[in-house]
Amino acid sequence: MHTYRQQVSFGDCDPAGIVFYPNMFRWMDAAFHNYLRPFGGHVQICQDLGAIGIGAMRANASFRSPLRDGDVLDIEVSVGGSRNKSLEMTYKGLVGERLAFEGSESRALFVRSERGLSAGAIAPLLEILSSADSPSE
Amino acid sequence: MHTYRQQVSFGDCDPAGIVFYPNMFRWMDAAFHNYLRPFGGHVQICQDLGAIGIGAMRANASFRSPLRDGDVLDIEVSVGGSRNKSLEMTYKGLVGERLAFEGSESRALFVRSERGLSAGAIAPLLEILSSADSPSE
Amino acid sequence: MHTYRQQVSFGDCDPAGIVFYPNMFRWMDAAFHNYLRPFGGHVQICQDLGAIGIGAMRANASFRSPLRDGDVLDIEVSVGGSRNKSLEMTYKGLVGERLAFEGSESRALFVRSERGLSAGAIAPLLEILSSADSPSE
Amino acid sequence: MHTYRQQVSFGDCDPAGIVFYPNMFRWMDAAFHNYLRPFGGHVQICQDLGAIGIGAMRANASFRSPLRDGDVLDIEVSVGGSRNKSLEMTYKGLVGERLAFEGSESRALFVRSERGLSAGAIAPLLEILSSADSPSE
Repeated sequence: MHTYRQQVSFGDCDPAGIVFYPNMFRWMDAAFHNYLRPFGGHVQICQDLGAIGIGAMRANASFRSPLRDGDVLDIEVSVGGSRNKSLEMTYKGLVGERLAFEGSESRALFVRSERGLSAGAIAPLLEILSSADSPSE
Repeated sequence: MHTYRQQVSFGDCDPAGIVFYPNMFRWMDAAFHNYLRPFGGHVQICQDLGAIGIGAMRANASFRSPLRDGDVLDIEVSVGGSRNKSLEMTYKGLVGERLAFEGSESRALFVRSERGLSAGAIAPLLEILSSADSPSE
Repeated sequence: MHTYRQQVSFGDCDPAGIVFYPNMFRWMDAAFHNYLRPFGGHVQICQDLGAIGIGAMRANASFRSPLRDGDVLDIEVSVGGSRNKSLEMTYKGLVGERLAFEGSESRALFVRSERGLSAGAIAPLLEILSSADSPSE
Repeated sequence: MHTYRQQVSFGDCDPAGIVFYPNMFRWMDAAFHNYLRPFGGHVQICQDLGAIGIGAMRANASFRSPLRDGDVLDIEVSVGGSRNKSLEMTYKGLVGERLAFEGSESRALFVRSERGLSAGAIAPLLEILSSADSPSE
């Protein structure tokens, strides 16, 4: 498991004084890219795999308790599973031991095709992500 | 059904040249607040109901085709259902006839309680949202 | 002069209930890209000029009156001047006749060079932007 | 001087692969709120001073070198000066020793008045910000 830390700021919050929910998806995405860094990072991995991005095809989240300015948020990232052409990422957002949100994303390897963008085989990406001795593990 | 229009701009897109997915949740939320306007708008409705916000407890979306700079996005908003303390909103994002994304949110009426924020009864909100003759319908 | 319209939404506002100021820069940028559309749009113009972007080198804004959820904002865009390698864009944000903000950006034509990115001659861009009979004028 | 660290992520970048400039203003604002924390934080300070926010009246920035996914950005924050009713904040964004941007904001203490929001005397805020022994100094 990998953890990404982000402190909540005033500008992330809405007139109700709590985090505007799309920001939690923004941080899930940032946690994903942070998770990729010890394996080379998004740019390098995509270049190695001939892809233009490791993009989301679906995302969901449940908001369990409000986040506010100053909260130190730790997002736990893990690979929750995979199919032929997609990877399931799971996220848990915590402030200390308090659960703020839980979420997941289905991600695919976007490659250029005759029809524009399509999803490529996920196995080569899984191989990279399971390589031993990444600095963060 | 209510439709909210938003033109995609350069700054909404990521290095792959397509919309960064949290922005689609941002637009779903904007479509929801736009949907509320003919019924008085979020500030007035919350004041009438003694609530501090009509906030999301859960959100999900499936991204069906990429959005790019200049695309004119129409988001169709509808009430998809309700429970005692929550409202299900459904969204469909279209560029002309092309489906860009589908999503939904569970929203609750946040009220102050002894335990901080909690969800109040949704019936009074439904009553407002089903009032006849709203200008947008 | 070109005008770009954007309705302010709840999620654009901060805990003080008024627009979080970086969003006004986001809308200035969206107004700029909207201004480019009748001349072919950013992607096409950059391709024609061999550039990778028409990016900001400097930006400033003065916030004259607060913007809130539901305000219909009209941003007036104009070319305020130019130098050899930069273009000055000026912006005025209005809600009806009320001035919400004023701002400007210096933009350059970013081209790849031996040193990474550098600014190219602005004359070819000015020629495109002064072409007669653009649909928006 | 106070330093705020933020790692640049994929989603902060635009189709040119570099940071979308409004995000630098978002980080300047986050750096400001981070700077306030050892003095009690924005909510507490505003409550003590009877204000509804310490908001920006003007902001500007010069973008000196591009920021990309993975860059570890350190923003140096300082009080650059003050007038009767405003505070000048200055910012320097660095990746290691490389200068990415420089900026400043004029901030005022927003108080409710008969005319809506107006700027209050800045002296009480300066007193708080110059209090000795703040944990961060």
